[in-house]
Amino acid sequence: MNTHANLDATFAALADPTRRAILARLASGEASVTELAEPFAMSQPAISKHLRVLEHAGLISRGRDAQRRPRRLEAKPLAEANDWLERYRQFWEQSFNRLDDLLDELKASEKKRGPQKRGHKK
Amino acid sequence: MNTHANLDATFAALADPTRRAILARLASGEASVTELAEPFAMSQPAISKHLRVLEHAGLISRGRDAQRRPRRLEAKPLAEANDWLERYRQFWEQSFNRLDDLLDELKASEKKRGPQKRGHKK
Repeated sequence: MNTHANLDATFAALADPTRRAILARLASGEASVTELAEPFAMSQPAISKHLRVLEHAGLISRGRDAQRRPRRLEAKPLAEANDWLERYRQFWEQSFNRLDDLLDELKASEKKRGPQKRGHKK
Repeated sequence: MNTHANLDATFAALADPTRRAILARLASGEASVTELAEPFAMSQPAISKHLRVLEHAGLISRGRDAQRRPRRLEAKPLAEANDWLERYRQFWEQSFNRLDDLLDELKASEKKRGPQKRGHKK
C-alpha cells in the first residue's frame, strides 16, 4: 500500500470506539479473540469483523501461538497517523495561543474598568 | 457531540486523501469552495460533499464573508485526534527502539565474524 492508502485505512480503522478500545487493550499486551471479546457486549463474529478492519490497516497482527492466535498491536501505522497530524501542531498551538491572548485581553479590560463589582453601585 | 462521537467523526473525515488535501490547503489560509475545487479534478458538488463531511466533524467552519463563504481550518478536532494518538507514543517508540537494538546486534555479530569480505577467500 502507498502512504495515501495506508493513512486512509488507518484513519478509517480508528473511526470506531470499539476498535479504539481493542487497540487500547492490546497496548498492554497481546490477547486472544475470546479475551478481546470479553469486555464488549458483542458476539465473537462482530469482534472478528472489527479485528479484520484493524488487521487490514496493519494496526494489529497475529502472534506465533497457533492455538490462541493472539492479536498484538503494531506500532507503525499509529506512528504514521501521528506524523500526519503533527504537521498541524503549529496550527493548533497558534490557534490556542490566540484564544489565550484574547482571554487575557478580556480579563485586562475588565480590570481596567475598575474595582466595582457587577450589581454593586458606589 | 461527546468525545467518542467527536473522534469517530474526525478520524472518518481524515480517512480520505481529498479531504486531507483540503485541510492541508486551508492550513495556509481560508479559501472559497471554488478556490478549494481548483487543484482537484473534481466537480464542485463532489468537493461540497467532502466539505460537508469536514464541517460535520468540526474540522472546518465558514468565514464571515457572506458572498465568498470562505472555509477555514479549525484546530480543536486535530488537537483531539493527536491527543488520542499520543497515548501510544511510548508504545511505538519502544517498538522502534527494540528494532534499532536488533539491528545493532545483527551488525555487531557480523563484525565479530571477522574482517573477511564475502566472496574473498584469504
